[in-house]
Formats: sequence, structure tokens, C-alpha cells
Amino acid sequence: SKTFNLLMPQLISLLKELAASSQEMLPEANPFLSCLSKNAEAVHFFCNYEESRGNYLVDVDGNRMLDLYSQISSIPIGYNHPALLKLLQQPQNLSTFVNRPALGILPPENFAERLKESLLSVAPKGLSQVITMSCGSCSNENAFKTIFMWYRSKERGHNNVTKEELETCMINQPPGCPEYSMLSFMGGFHGRTMGCLAATHSKAIHKLDIPSFDWPIAPFPRLKYPLEEFGKENEQEEARCLEEVEDLIVKYRKKKKVVAGIIVEPIQSEGGDNHASDDFFRKLRNIARKHGCGFLVDEVQTGGGCTGKFWAHEHWGLDDPADVLSFSKKMMTGGFFHKEEFRANAPYRIFNTWLGDPSKNLLLAEVINVIKREDLLNNVTHAGKVLLAGLLDLQSRYPHLISRARGRGTFCSFDTPNDAIRNKLIAIARNKGVVLGGSGDRSIRFRPTLVFRDHHAHLFLNIFSDILADFK
Amino acid sequence: SKTFNLLMPQLISLLKELAASSQEMLPEANPFLSCLSKNAEAVHFFCNYEESRGNYLVDVDGNRMLDLYSQISSIPIGYNHPALLKLLQQPQNLSTFVNRPALGILPPENFAERLKESLLSVAPKGLSQVITMSCGSCSNENAFKTIFMWYRSKERGHNNVTKEELETCMINQPPGCPEYSMLSFMGGFHGRTMGCLAATHSKAIHKLDIPSFDWPIAPFPRLKYPLEEFGKENEQEEARCLEEVEDLIVKYRKKKKVVAGIIVEPIQSEGGDNHASDDFFRKLRNIARKHGCGFLVDEVQTGGGCTGKFWAHEHWGLDDPADVLSFSKKMMTGGFFHKEEFRANAPYRIFNTWLGDPSKNLLLAEVINVIKREDLLNNVTHAGKVLLAGLLDLQSRYPHLISRARGRGTFCSFDTPNDAIRNKLIAIARNKGVVLGGSGDRSIRFRPTLVFRDHHAHLFLNIFSDILADFK
Repeated sequence: SKTFNLLMPQLISLLKELAASSQEMLPEANPFLSCLSKNAEAVHFFCNYEESRGNYLVDVDGNRMLDLYSQISSIPIGYNHPALLKLLQQPQNLSTFVNRPALGILPPENFAERLKESLLSVAPKGLSQVITMSCGSCSNENAFKTIFMWYRSKERGHNNVTKEELETCMINQPPGCPEYSMLSFMGGFHGRTMGCLAATHSKAIHKLDIPSFDWPIAPFPRLKYPLEEFGKENEQEEARCLEEVEDLIVKYRKKKKVVAGIIVEPIQSEGGDNHASDDFFRKLRNIARKHGCGFLVDEVQTGGGCTGKFWAHEHWGLDDPADVLSFSKKMMTGGFFHKEEFRANAPYRIFNTWLGDPSKNLLLAEVINVIKREDLLNNVTHAGKVLLAGLLDLQSRYPHLISRARGRGTFCSFDTPNDAIRNKLIAIARNKGVVLGGSGDRSIRFRPTLVFRDHHAHLFLNIFSDILADFK
Repeated sequence: SKTFNLLMPQLISLLKELAASSQEMLPEANPFLSCLSKNAEAVHFFCNYEESRGNYLVDVDGNRMLDLYSQISSIPIGYNHPALLKLLQQPQNLSTFVNRPALGILPPENFAERLKESLLSVAPKGLSQVITMSCGSCSNENAFKTIFMWYRSKERGHNNVTKEELETCMINQPPGCPEYSMLSFMGGFHGRTMGCLAATHSKAIHKLDIPSFDWPIAPFPRLKYPLEEFGKENEQEEARCLEEVEDLIVKYRKKKKVVAGIIVEPIQSEGGDNHASDDFFRKLRNIARKHGCGFLVDEVQTGGGCTGKFWAHEHWGLDDPADVLSFSKKMMTGGFFHKEEFRANAPYRIFNTWLGDPSKNLLLAEVINVIKREDLLNNVTHAGKVLLAGLLDLQSRYPHLISRARGRGTFCSFDTPNDAIRNKLIAIARNKGVVLGGSGDRSIRFRPTLVFRDHHAHLFLNIFSDILADFK
């Protein structure tokens, strides 16, 4: 049997190496912070955010690095964007940062207006409703709840809620707490709170020791690259996965664990940057509709413009791709959009104290202005093409190190032979002034900001080409 | 059978009435926001946060109200406190508000220092470790996970994680995902994400239609007031509840749903402001220790000074009251403290993208400075005595309207005969310039800021005395 401590020793030792330049800070942090103590292995290095600019992250020693990971894909328009700094300097905005309201009961007077300017101006077609949340996990948790309530409401029809339901729900039992399930995909990541975690299947370390739900898990297609060479095989692989989805829906219905919804990422963004064809998602959407399941698209990582469209699922070419769409990260606030029919049927059902944060909405409104004003979606598309073309070129020159180069917009990735080589490449890149992140067990993922431009792609490609040439 | 729509019709109609003065804003909000549309019944009114000051909340029509609810107990030192506004005006702080890092991997250079100044300066005795989170639900979810991991690690002893565990956890099955449970109390509220919700038992509306876990639920004491008259009965009631806790631990162990932890609020703050004696909590703590269960004190609502101590559980008079303590609301950031032995044994096990928000830590550090500088804990104790004495006086004069007046610090409450009268009193108070909140099915709860002083208590008591005198 494998030991727990063998799970990721190489990563840990490399991360320690990475942290070496600012290692002297760790002992001070140690006694205070468990996320920086036993978990200190996760700390890459300490940063000077004041000095960071645009695509460049500066560490405590003044090293300036091209940041292609952007805080796990969560910095939309680069560090210290002047438009955002300006917002903070406007006296009329200060109150928003110091008085965080309970939005569900006492919203500020400009609340609807702010949302119109920001989130609702980028709402996916058909998803007219939005609720903000504090983080990605809470967004998915509440999206699940929205789908469960919608499903139960359909099932209930014109019947009223029974006394038995009201009583049993208080003690966690059916029928009040029905044994519904969410269907998810192997390799998917949807967050780490207990509902989300039951739909997350990326790494054992995320799930070990935590009680979970018996929910159906379908295989996600493992496409072969280059795609144009493996058209037939990939089509069969996608058909196999879709068949399994339908089988699971039938099987779980028989088990009395009705599949109320399906959750999927447009690109599996933590579990290895796994893509599927637009056709796969169109068919999956149809399966959800056919079986009466809510269709939840998790755009926490793919949303906000990094694929060249504001939402990655817009590439699928459907008018009606999602019932519910969750977001966070680059959007600066968590939350989810949903169709009108997915509205909770009473107040306080989807609710918490803060329900998001107007100060984040304010920043997001300006981010969206910048995206529009600077035409950043087209920028992403263009810079992404330069990046991917460069990766394909490197792949042709270093096929023993790089394979399966793939991507949409700047949301690119490639595979390495194994996690040891992957982690070594990340460590070397960091020492050469480039911050990269891993994905799955052997991929390197690109998650630059939306202001990543062609010349940044060229800069990276030059540095990385040298790294590959020297790699032993 | 009761219909769903009968659940809280009076509350809804009263809230609509309440919202009347700013009702004209609702139609505009309607099409955009489901939390303000079907859920619009939850909106009390729209606020002008710029004009609000200290304990006074101003609505869009310029009405200035004494706020004794403070955004569901989440405003620590009043609206627009000058010390917080000043922070925002210091150029060196701007970067913290616009560059939100992935704290677990790339903390800012001043991170440990900020935590030392703020959270760690108020850490409960023995709980040397802290992890920040974005909201109260995420704090409890991760506190649960911390306890599950700790428990499994104890059970595992010196044995390594098995291949079977690593494989089964990926598909949500034991032994990788063990069937552990958290014991909670009827009437408790711990949040609304799926893990938290399984421990929440305050109102059916919070839980209906959401799948849950079969976890043990113990009765929480229902004390009789005045306490000095019912010493014997209350002692028996508490003993009954504690006996049930032990029985449930044994029963669930037999069911192979081992109780890994116990979660409890020092005062049930949503479920009716239910108090128990310090002795009850001391005995509960001992039961947890005796059975090897982690003891999690949820101070999301009671924490931050409102009971006259920084943490409500400090009233219990134990050196070692909690293994894990969760917070949010007045602390401006979510998170939890824990003992060193509860540290996750590998990085990335308790983790998410943001892991809190340094801009909230910055505000919190200043809030804590203000609490210390202005001696606000003593202020709370004093103002709380004035408030409770006044409530007891009103209770003696209007026993048909007010009963069970109770509280610690300013964290006071009283019962009304039923929810219709309770909601009517809240509505009248609002029209007389006082914002109050409900708790449970018939209580009114006081949740003022920490800068609520004796004269605010007198102001409220005068207004409310008139309301009671006129009440029909």
C-alpha cells in the first residue's frame, strides 16, 4: 500500500526550493498560521503586491516575474490596474469598502444599478437572474440547492408541501431532505465544501477522510491529440462518456437517488485541462433536458473572458446552454446566474448574511468597463493564438517533453511526461522569471490575465524554448 | 397538511409594509436580481450607507434609524467609522484592495504581521492556529473537514493511508470517505452550504428539499425564566440534553456513523436566542473529550465582543473550551482557530483559491485596535446591563407582551407571545426609528454594534416603552 507521505514528495521538495528566496520569512509565519506552517509547503514565495504591475508579479526580494498563473486564474486585468486604483481614490466609493451590508435584506440604494453595469451586462443569454456569493464553493453549493429546489418543485407539481416534509427536513431525513443527487465527471473540480466536494474528483488529497454523498460520477472524455488525427477515436470516446451519463441517470433513478442536475466545467481546469468538443457539450445539454435534469455549467475558472468569449460555454453555439452558471475568481465576487424558472419560490431559501460584497461588485463593474474599452476579449483570442502556435512549435521540437498542447484563448496547457518533470519545469521557469501553474498530474496550465498580449507570449516562448533546450 | 405558502405569510406581508417607504425601488430591481425579486419579500428597505453613522442606519428617504440589528450582527464598530475610512485614504493600503492574492500559495510580505496585529492578538487561549475563509459557511465547512481529518488520523494511528482509501475517496465511498458524523443541536444554525446545513436545525425553510446526511441531533436545553426561580428544573433539563448527547454518540458509533465532532453555538443565535448555563457547556466539553470527539464552538454570531468578552465561550471559565472555533460576521472575514494537533498533515488539504481576503484582515486589524483603544468590551458589558435591566422592567410592566428577557453583554433578546405579534412589534419599531431583528419563531434579538452605549439603550427603551403602551 502506498503511504500518504509518498503522495507528492517531489512537488513538496520543489516548492520548498521555490520558496527558498523568501524562506527566511517562513519561520516567522510558522507559529501563527497553519496555512503557512504544516501547510507551508504550499507557499511558493512571498510577494510584494504594491510593486507588481500588469502581468508582472514582484516577490519580496524584488524579482519581477511574468505571471502566467495570476493567483490561480483570479486576477482579471493585471496587478494594480490604474482604473481600479482610481476607484479607491474616489471619496464617494469609500463607504462601500467599510460598510458591508446584509445584501438580501438591506441593499444599498445603487445596488440594482451597479449590477446592471456589471454582472448583468455580461449575463449569458437566457440567464436573467443573478445572486452573488462570497466564493466559488458557496456559488456551487447554492447553485446545487437552487437545482434541488427546482427539481422538487417540479416533482411536487400543484401539491402543497406536506407536514411530513416540513418535519422530516428538520432532522435531515426524506421526504423533507430528498435523496437527490448531482451527476459530476471524473476529473472535475467544483470546490471543497461538502456539497461541492461530492462533485469534485480531481485529486485524492482533496477528498480523503471527508464524508460524502453517493452521487453518480461519469467518465469525462480523454481526447487524443492532435485532434485532427484522432477524429474517429475521439468521437467514440465522447459517445462512450455520454452513454455512461445516460446509464447513470437511469441507474440512480432506480436506486431512488434521482439525478436532479448535472454539473460540468467547459474545460476541466484543475483535473488536467481536459477539453471536450462543442458537440459533446451540446449532446450533454440535450441529455440533461431529456431527463429533466438541471444543467449547471461551472465557469469559476473558465469564465470572465480568458477563452476569448466572456463565458467559455458560449463557444458551444447554443442559445440555451445552461440552466445555471456559477462564477468566481476573475469575477472578483462569487455568484451564479440562472433562468427565471429556477428562482426559489420563497424568500430566505437562497440566503446568507452577506450574499456577496458590494465592494467587489464595484471593482468588477470597472473591470468589465476595461474589458469592453480595451477590447480584451479580442486581445485574448489573438494572444492565445500566438501562445498556442508557439506551444505547438515547441511540441514539434521537444516531443519528449511536450505533448497534447491545447487551449482556447489564452486558457492553454500542455502535458509533460510525468509530474516530476512537470514540477521541475515549473521550478526552472520560476528561476528564469516566469510563474506557471500545474494542472492534473502532469500538465502545465496557462492562466494569464486578460491583459496578456502577443509580446508577453513571445517573451514566455523565448524563455521556455531556452529552458527546454537546456533541460536534462 | 400545512401548505408551504402558510409558512410565514404574516412576516412577508409585514416586510412588504416595512419596505413601503422605498418600495418604488423594487420594481427596477425586480427583473435583475432574484434575491430582490421572488425573494424581494426579504428586502426590508434600501439604505444610504454613505449617510449612515455609528449606530444609525439611514434609508434612501433619509430616515435615520437606531440600528439594533447591524446587518444581521455583522457591523463591528458602527457605520463609517473614521478609523476605517482613514485606512482607505492611505495610499499604501490601496494595493491590498485591488490585488487579491491566492493566500495559500502567494501571501503578501506583511501577511504574518497583519495576522499578528489582528486575528492572532485575539486568539482564544490554546488555539494558536488560524485559517481565514471568505464567509461563515465556508468557515464551518472547513472546520468540519479539519475535525474529520484529525479524527481519521487518530484512528489510523501509525498506519499509512491505504491504496483502497485513496481509490475509494475519489468515488465518494468509504473507507476513503468515511461515514463520520458531526453531532449538532436542534435549534442550532451553522450555515447553509450542504455540510453546514446538515448541522443546522433552526427553520424548515432553510432545509426543505436539500439532500442531507444522517447525523445525530441532540435537544438543546429549553430553559425556563426567570432562571433564579427554575434552578432545579433547568438543571434537570440540561442534564436530560447531555444524557441524550452521550446516548447519540454511542448509538451512532454502533450505526458505524462515528461522531467525529460536536458543534455548538454559545447562544443559539438564529434559532431563538436559546441560552444554556456555563455548567452545561463545561459538561458538554467534557463529554466531547471523554468520547474523543472534536469540540467545535461556532462563534460566527457570538464572537467579536458582543457578549462583553471577545469570545462568548470565554464566559464558561475553562482554559481549554474548544478544539476549533469558527468566526465571521463582525470579524469582517470568515475563518477558524484551532489547536496545533488539529493541523492538516499535508498541504492543500484545507485550501481554496482565496483563503480569505487581506483587505478584510486590514480592516479587522483596525477594528481590533479600536476595540482595545476605546475599551469596547467593557462598554458592551455596561450598555448590555442597562439594556437588559430595561427589558426586565418592560417585561414586568407588559408581561402579556414580553417574557424571558435574557442576554449576555448587548446580545439580548426577549420572547413575544407569537410570531404575528413579534413581527408587528418589529414593524412598528421600524416606523418609530428603530431597526430590530427576529430570532426563532417568536423572539426579538438585539445585535447592536460594539459602540452601542448606555444612552442608545435608554433611547431604545423609551421608544419601545411607548410602543408597548400603545400596542393593541
